[in-house]
Amino acid sequence: MSRFSLAAMTTVTVLGLGPMGHALAAAFTAAHHPTTVWNRTPGKENGLDATVAATAAEAIAASPLVVVCVRDYAVAQSILDTDALEGRTLVNVSGGSPSQARAMATWAAAQGIDYLDGVIVATTEAIGGPEAALFYSGPADVYETHRATLSALGENANHLGDDPGRAAAFDASLQDMLWTSMSGVIHMFTLAKAENVPAADIAGHAKAMLGFFPDMIDLLADQVAAEHYPGDAGTLEATAATMDHILSAIRAHDLDNGVLAAARTQVQQAIDAGHGADGFGRLAAL
Amino acid sequence: MSRFSLAAMTTVTVLGLGPMGHALAAAFTAAHHPTTVWNRTPGKENGLDATVAATAAEAIAASPLVVVCVRDYAVAQSILDTDALEGRTLVNVSGGSPSQARAMATWAAAQGIDYLDGVIVATTEAIGGPEAALFYSGPADVYETHRATLSALGENANHLGDDPGRAAAFDASLQDMLWTSMSGVIHMFTLAKAENVPAADIAGHAKAMLGFFPDMIDLLADQVAAEHYPGDAGTLEATAATMDHILSAIRAHDLDNGVLAAARTQVQQAIDAGHGADGFGRLAAL
Ligand SMILES: NC(=O)c1ccc[n+]([C@@H]2O[C@H](COP(=O)([O-])OP(=O)(O)OC[C@H]3O[C@@H](n4cnc5c(N)ncnc54)[C@H](OP(=O)(O)O)[C@@H]3O)[C@@H](O)[C@H]2O)c1
Ligand SMILES: NC(=O)c1ccc[n+]([C@@H]2O[C@H](COP(=O)([O-])OP(=O)(O)OC[C@H]3O[C@@H](n4cnc5c(N)ncnc54)[C@H](OP(=O)(O)O)[C@@H]3O)[C@@H](O)[C@H]2O)c1
Repeated sequence: MSRFSLAAMTTVTVLGLGPMGHALAAAFTAAHHPTTVWNRTPGKENGLDATVAATAAEAIAASPLVVVCVRDYAVAQSILDTDALEGRTLVNVSGGSPSQARAMATWAAAQGIDYLDGVIVATTEAIGGPEAALFYSGPADVYETHRATLSALGENANHLGDDPGRAAAFDASLQDMLWTSMSGVIHMFTLAKAENVPAADIAGHAKAMLGFFPDMIDLLADQVAAEHYPGDAGTLEATAATMDHILSAIRAHDLDNGVLAAARTQVQQAIDAGHGADGFGRLAAL
Repeated sequence: MSRFSLAAMTTVTVLGLGPMGHALAAAFTAAHHPTTVWNRTPGKENGLDATVAATAAEAIAASPLVVVCVRDYAVAQSILDTDALEGRTLVNVSGGSPSQARAMATWAAAQGIDYLDGVIVATTEAIGGPEAALFYSGPADVYETHRATLSALGENANHLGDDPGRAAAFDASLQDMLWTSMSGVIHMFTLAKAENVPAADIAGHAKAMLGFFPDMIDLLADQVAAEHYPGDAGTLEATAATMDHILSAIRAHDLDNGVLAAARTQVQQAIDAGHGADGFGRLAAL
């Protein structure tokens, strides 16, 4: 399809062509949005059917919708040209904390820039497909204006409300679970290796164990919501004993990286506070 | 079905009637094994169609197969009557470390007791059903002799070889992943709550994120097995930046329990050792 027949498609600008920015630009062009790109280091536009701008300001001037995807908020702020952005919509999908997102929204409002804070929970390959989860927060009308264009990045897009920090709050919470769990997975393999158990032998059982996680997440969500933490599916006292067995196995191989030990300390705090007969959910209310 | 018609079924003894021991005894009786039970504190046999022995020694004398399921190995050792056990098979499913399991096997061998070390990866309700995973290690012939009887606890039973510590090694590794991940899940809810995000709102997205875990576990298993940790799906440098965003959100609410911070420290050690462009799997080889 030629650009010529697509005059009605919204033009989009993508600032930042790291692995993720490149994937975003590719998704916009695949959805036939005329796309302008810019990256600090030139030559990162390989494989993209996009217009390459010489400066960030020139790239911004090319489109009503500007998506910035760089290392972090400080970098994003440093490349954004305030004058060029005025009257346009800025969607920042660089990673950051809720307070950084709120500060950037305040800055944007003062400059007359419509601002959405975005979060991408996906690998670069998943962008544009059903496995990519996208979260946006900021003014609902701004989101509605650009919703169709943004859907090029993935149909599983969630507008989380006006508070610009909300997408980052979802992201931080989900990534907290993700990276803590990732630490558990890699440490499982580390301990297994020390016990001469091949990674492939343990992986299958680990995946089977994952089968229990959805119910466990729902159970803990219910307990947290109800602020009631019954111990009938397992008490903190029993958890402490189990963690001690694991830590003993870990320490026998000098493999204590402090992760599970910190979790054990928090369990002890709950026990010491008189909650030993409660369930694990109690840790959300220490 | 009456006991009378079941004369050929193996009799079984269960020592310990905590939540798990009770579930084991219930599974043996449900499978029509005449079962004798004993518990330190009397009166825990409620609901069980089992013979209650007055002493542990009397319970042991009743069956060729004795399953002990108490708080830990020290307790197990303290209630086991050596004379009564001689010539019988002892299966210890109390939680413990690989070295404890090996020490108990050495003790049992010296007493003329056939010994299997067992591990239960299941909740009490799952016992006897397809969701319960059971691991045994110790002499293959001893396992084969009692395999059919033990299958009453769950068909998903795995004999892991002669090393008596191997079941406990699997258990410690899997539980390391489980409890580290559980810590991540509950901290996700804790952070979300601090950001006024209801637990139910985050739970659905967390479960969706779990969908990526099986592939991630296989990917890491392959990397660990090959001792090759490419960073193309994400580098340790990028992981460090993400963890910093999460920790910043966590610390803004004074919610740092040290778990993710310890993981972040280990990532930094890998970066400082020159592995910043490698993938997360590198952490298994620090
Ligand atoms: N990759 C993923 O799977 C993934 C998933 C979810 C979210 N994200 C988020 O997406 C964002 C981008 O990630 P990424 O994977 O593309 O790689 P990245 O390494 O986090 O960011 C690379 C981009 O940032 C630019 N940059 C870095 N420092 C700069 C500076 N001082 N001035 C100007 N530009 C600078 C780079 O430009 P140069 O080329 O000139 O260095 C490049 O465009 C991150 O915030 C990340 O949290 C990534
Ligand atoms: N519950 C689970 O979901 C689960 C899952 C997997 C593995 N396990 C393992 O199964 C084992 C038993 O767990 P559990 O859930 O039944 O509860 P538990 O609280 O770990 O153990 C309770 C049992 O230990 C006995 N006991 C404790 N201290 C004793 C002592 N000093 N002398 C004699 N007996 C003593 C108790 O007798 P009294 O009644 O007299 O106190 C009771 O029979 C543990 O090692 C655990 O790791 C449990």
